[in-house]
Amino acid sequence: LESKLPDLGTTIFTQMSALAAEHQAINLSQGFPDFDGPAYLKDRLNYHVAQGANQYAPMTGVPALRQAIAAKTQQQYGISVCADNEVTVTAGATEALYAAITALVRAGDEVVCFDPSYDSYAPAVSLAGGKLVRLQLNPPAFKVDWSAFRAALSPRTRLVIINSPHNPSATLWQADDYNQLWQAIADRNIFVLSDEVYEHICFTAEGHVGALEHPNLRERTIAVSSFGKTFHMTGWKVGYAIAPAALSAELRKVHQYLTFSINTPAQLALADMLNAHPEHWQQLPAFYRAKRDRFAKALAGSRFTVLPSQGTYFLLVDYSAISELDDVAFARWLTEHAGVAAIPLSVFSAGPFPHKLVRLCFAKQDATLDEAGARLCRL
Amino acid sequence: LESKLPDLGTTIFTQMSALAAEHQAINLSQGFPDFDGPAYLKDRLNYHVAQGANQYAPMTGVPALRQAIAAKTQQQYGISVCADNEVTVTAGATEALYAAITALVRAGDEVVCFDPSYDSYAPAVSLAGGKLVRLQLNPPAFKVDWSAFRAALSPRTRLVIINSPHNPSATLWQADDYNQLWQAIADRNIFVLSDEVYEHICFTAEGHVGALEHPNLRERTIAVSSFGKTFHMTGWKVGYAIAPAALSAELRKVHQYLTFSINTPAQLALADMLNAHPEHWQQLPAFYRAKRDRFAKALAGSRFTVLPSQGTYFLLVDYSAISELDDVAFARWLTEHAGVAAIPLSVFSAGPFPHKLVRLCFAKQDATLDEAGARLCRL
Ligand SMILES: CSCCC(=O)C(=O)O
Ligand SMILES: CSCCC(=O)C(=O)O
Repeated sequence: LESKLPDLGTTIFTQMSALAAEHQAINLSQGFPDFDGPAYLKDRLNYHVAQGANQYAPMTGVPALRQAIAAKTQQQYGISVCADNEVTVTAGATEALYAAITALVRAGDEVVCFDPSYDSYAPAVSLAGGKLVRLQLNPPAFKVDWSAFRAALSPRTRLVIINSPHNPSATLWQADDYNQLWQAIADRNIFVLSDEVYEHICFTAEGHVGALEHPNLRERTIAVSSFGKTFHMTGWKVGYAIAPAALSAELRKVHQYLTFSINTPAQLALADMLNAHPEHWQQLPAFYRAKRDRFAKALAGSRFTVLPSQGTYFLLVDYSAISELDDVAFARWLTEHAGVAAIPLSVFSAGPFPHKLVRLCFAKQDATLDEAGARLCRL
Repeated sequence: LESKLPDLGTTIFTQMSALAAEHQAINLSQGFPDFDGPAYLKDRLNYHVAQGANQYAPMTGVPALRQAIAAKTQQQYGISVCADNEVTVTAGATEALYAAITALVRAGDEVVCFDPSYDSYAPAVSLAGGKLVRLQLNPPAFKVDWSAFRAALSPRTRLVIINSPHNPSATLWQADDYNQLWQAIADRNIFVLSDEVYEHICFTAEGHVGALEHPNLRERTIAVSSFGKTFHMTGWKVGYAIAPAALSAELRKVHQYLTFSINTPAQLALADMLNAHPEHWQQLPAFYRAKRDRFAKALAGSRFTVLPSQGTYFLLVDYSAISELDDVAFARWLTEHAGVAAIPLSVFSAGPFPHKLVRLCFAKQDATLDEAGARLCRL
């Protein structure tokens, strides 16, 4: 059996979480909260399960959830999306990304992405027969070089994958980035896949700018989000894709035979949560800003240099004052010797990424952050 | 935007369920129970959600569930499978089938399946770049012609997709079928994908024979099952694949980037259910045999001819004494004029399937079956 994905090992997230468990380290590697989601959401799940809402959901998602997503999108961006034809509920954002790539990319097509990039994009493009063209972004600003981007486009370019708030760099795209993107692709037959799973965790005054807010881009874009990050329930695995009807129809053809439908009672509970408690996502920036600031303050007493975090629940830290090790070795060392697990940044780039940076997740209880901070200050 | 799956419409299940709702017909089309799953299973879900087991599960599935699946497999077949390396939890059987096909089929490979065949196989093979070679089985016995099968194999054949208990024909493979399959492929580099989602709903004395029970086939097989059918919870979307470590490793490479992981509290609740109540699946044949017999008896007073159902929760009925319509037209007519929705059989075959057969789902409360029977007797 010759492998279709011969270069593929276990994800860094699984590796580092396992190493953290082995060494009883504080796990700031894989991104998930060490606290629970809202009691109301859990109560609603219990309610719908008890009521017997346990059979297949419609393939596109339960109407109540698609409508709640459309209502939230309206409130957030002031744009209307059609719950029936433009919203599709998926098995987390991961399935939405995979289905979008599979629907849009043909053998030989080129797909542009920006490194460091989330690790599911490349295998999905490869399985679809596409060729990934990876443009490197560099610290500390991780800004796109738009002339390099334009130069990277070819007649075979079919898709651009973007991601703001950006994991792992914790930077945000601004309105001008979307304008630049639009200008570069306007005259070409190129689509956009916009991974916005951290849309509600933004710390700048401008806040999150979504690809859907750009009226032209919107016609070319599949925007992907997830409830795992927003409601502190990464294990529920409910995400969604918003796209114009024609693009949604293609995505649904794949989704229909990839998972068919998503956990019914979880969808109904999330619909109730969105409808009853919009303040949850509205207050999320303040909730996570306090954690970010608390943790950054703790690290101010260390020999790490903390990079600014504009969004996501991640902080990058430069460890060059502490160690000569490359980032993969340093992340292991840190887990084993400091009792704090982190994610090395180079694993998200195809080319060399010779920076001394690791990513720390601050979606943790204050006590966890304080203890991790104390351990990191001892180095 | 040119479609990658241009011939693909909405599944027959979605179409017929929508038509049933529109005409307030009794929905015996899409296969799902109109009763709820076990109270214990629902209680355990509530328990794990309340306990805060709401973050990412391991990519391969929570250990407790993989172990419970291995223990059940041991009890069922007397064979041992490795919970760590041979069991992978998926987003329903649909994801397991899709991931298996994507992992094993390369562009230009041929995949053999037996029509009538479940409607997710063909799109998954097509998206993987494979060519489906469809062998027709015919009523009433739906038996494989093994010389035709051997003749259909070519040097490009990579995979055979089998399905017992068989949806939609309600027939079972016997040990000899697996022997014939093995003899035909033993000397070739061909794998087997065995869809066994109705494994616990079998009515013959011999009962379910799984592909894993054949010691040679086992080394080539990805066996797929699901808890939706077994625990009356089609909306929970938890399935699994059992395969030798090397095949599981390839399947997991795809699964890792297709959905990453499956709903955590549902996995934990299902593990508890499997461990605490093995009698649930042990008693399932008797539970569904009573429904099958009740419904068949009701139909004995009608002008339909009921075909034998050896397994699954479906019955085929021949309507040639009632109507000249083709099966798709008859299924619509039946929904609109008799108030009972059914699935036409021809939609599962690529070639002509000129039989007057529709499929009725008997996973319904007795009162539902009695009322449907009464309506069908009036024709
Ligand atoms: C799917 S596990 C990885 C979680 C995550 O998004 C991250 O840590 O970046
Ligand atoms: C995924 S909806 C179809 C359910 C089913 O397996 C069937 O009705 O055959």
